[in-house]
Amino acid sequence: MNRKGILLVVSGFSGAGKGTLMKELLSRYDNYALSISATTRNPREGEVDGREYFFRTREEFEKMIAEDALIEHACYVGNYYGTPRAYVEEQLSLGKDVILEIEIQGALQIKKRFPDTLLLFVSPPDAATLKNRLVGRGTETMEVIENRLARATEEANGIEQYDYFIINDDLDACVRQVHEIIQGEHSRVFRSLELITEIRSELKTFQKG
Amino acid sequence: MNRKGILLVVSGFSGAGKGTLMKELLSRYDNYALSISATTRNPREGEVDGREYFFRTREEFEKMIAEDALIEHACYVGNYYGTPRAYVEEQLSLGKDVILEIEIQGALQIKKRFPDTLLLFVSPPDAATLKNRLVGRGTETMEVIENRLARATEEANGIEQYDYFIINDDLDACVRQVHEIIQGEHSRVFRSLELITEIRSELKTFQKG
Repeated sequence: MNRKGILLVVSGFSGAGKGTLMKELLSRYDNYALSISATTRNPREGEVDGREYFFRTREEFEKMIAEDALIEHACYVGNYYGTPRAYVEEQLSLGKDVILEIEIQGALQIKKRFPDTLLLFVSPPDAATLKNRLVGRGTETMEVIENRLARATEEANGIEQYDYFIINDDLDACVRQVHEIIQGEHSRVFRSLELITEIRSELKTFQKG
Repeated sequence: MNRKGILLVVSGFSGAGKGTLMKELLSRYDNYALSISATTRNPREGEVDGREYFFRTREEFEKMIAEDALIEHACYVGNYYGTPRAYVEEQLSLGKDVILEIEIQGALQIKKRFPDTLLLFVSPPDAATLKNRLVGRGTETMEVIENRLARATEEANGIEQYDYFIINDDLDACVRQVHEIIQGEHSRVFRSLELITEIRSELKTFQKG
């Protein structure tokens, strides 16, 4: 297909199942590419450089910022996180729909710089389910619960900036739905301007003929 | 499902197969309702009042305009055409996605009045196919061809006002694609504000608790 890929940002409440959703999308369909973030935080046990993250020193990371090699970056709890530009641009030009799983700060940076970016927000089906996931099984400390609540509230404040609000109730149905939404987005008028322009100029030729 | 229906306008180049597309959508899926226009033009052979159109006198039609019983109306070649409000509102509140097959003038009136309306523009796959359909099989008079070209050019000028540009190449694939686009639109953030507000206020309750 001779079409350009769509840049996609997927965010959502913790516990909404974003990770599994992305994994399923990538394994079921061949038109997606997952962008891997760079970070200055230390690898956790089992994490592999270039799989979970590109692990970089602070110096290396700041060099990437200076060289405009990241399309967005943000700082959380004293560590940098960012999206390397090269992979994203390469995959988009190959026609792949490129998925970034990032937080709202980064999402808005990307949207500002690339207005055609599609922003998806994933949520559990209702507030009760969200609560259960936030509060946990009664084994969490009050501090953990309060942190999660504060974070969910902050995430919820940004939802209007997103394009789609995706309910992840049944995983299988949700994967299909997200795929259909993304594929449908390829038919948006603003993503079809080349074809529309072509048809218009042909119409003009006919009239002169 | 406790969701409100989407108001859909389908327009497109003549010969793009809109009619067949709508017929297939209605027969394959049960979530659509087709709005029937009212007109002051005379019924053609085989046309039935209440099936192709509601055939009305000019006096009756102008009364409908005065009573705001039409959500849009326009005049073509000396005849009125318009969309009766009652059926559209009833079907939307029942959760049906209501399809109006109308021209750009009417489409823009509707969009202005109901900004959540989804506008779809249907096109043949390329300019050559469009040309063949416009020029016909060599049996058309020059006047007919020129009229079609002028109309297609006018239609093409309005495409940017639409939300989606749908290529009707393979009918079966196109019906599925249009259905998926419309169903995906139900997950737009601006169509999900009620649910989002609910989740937000629940989050506030948790924090107080």
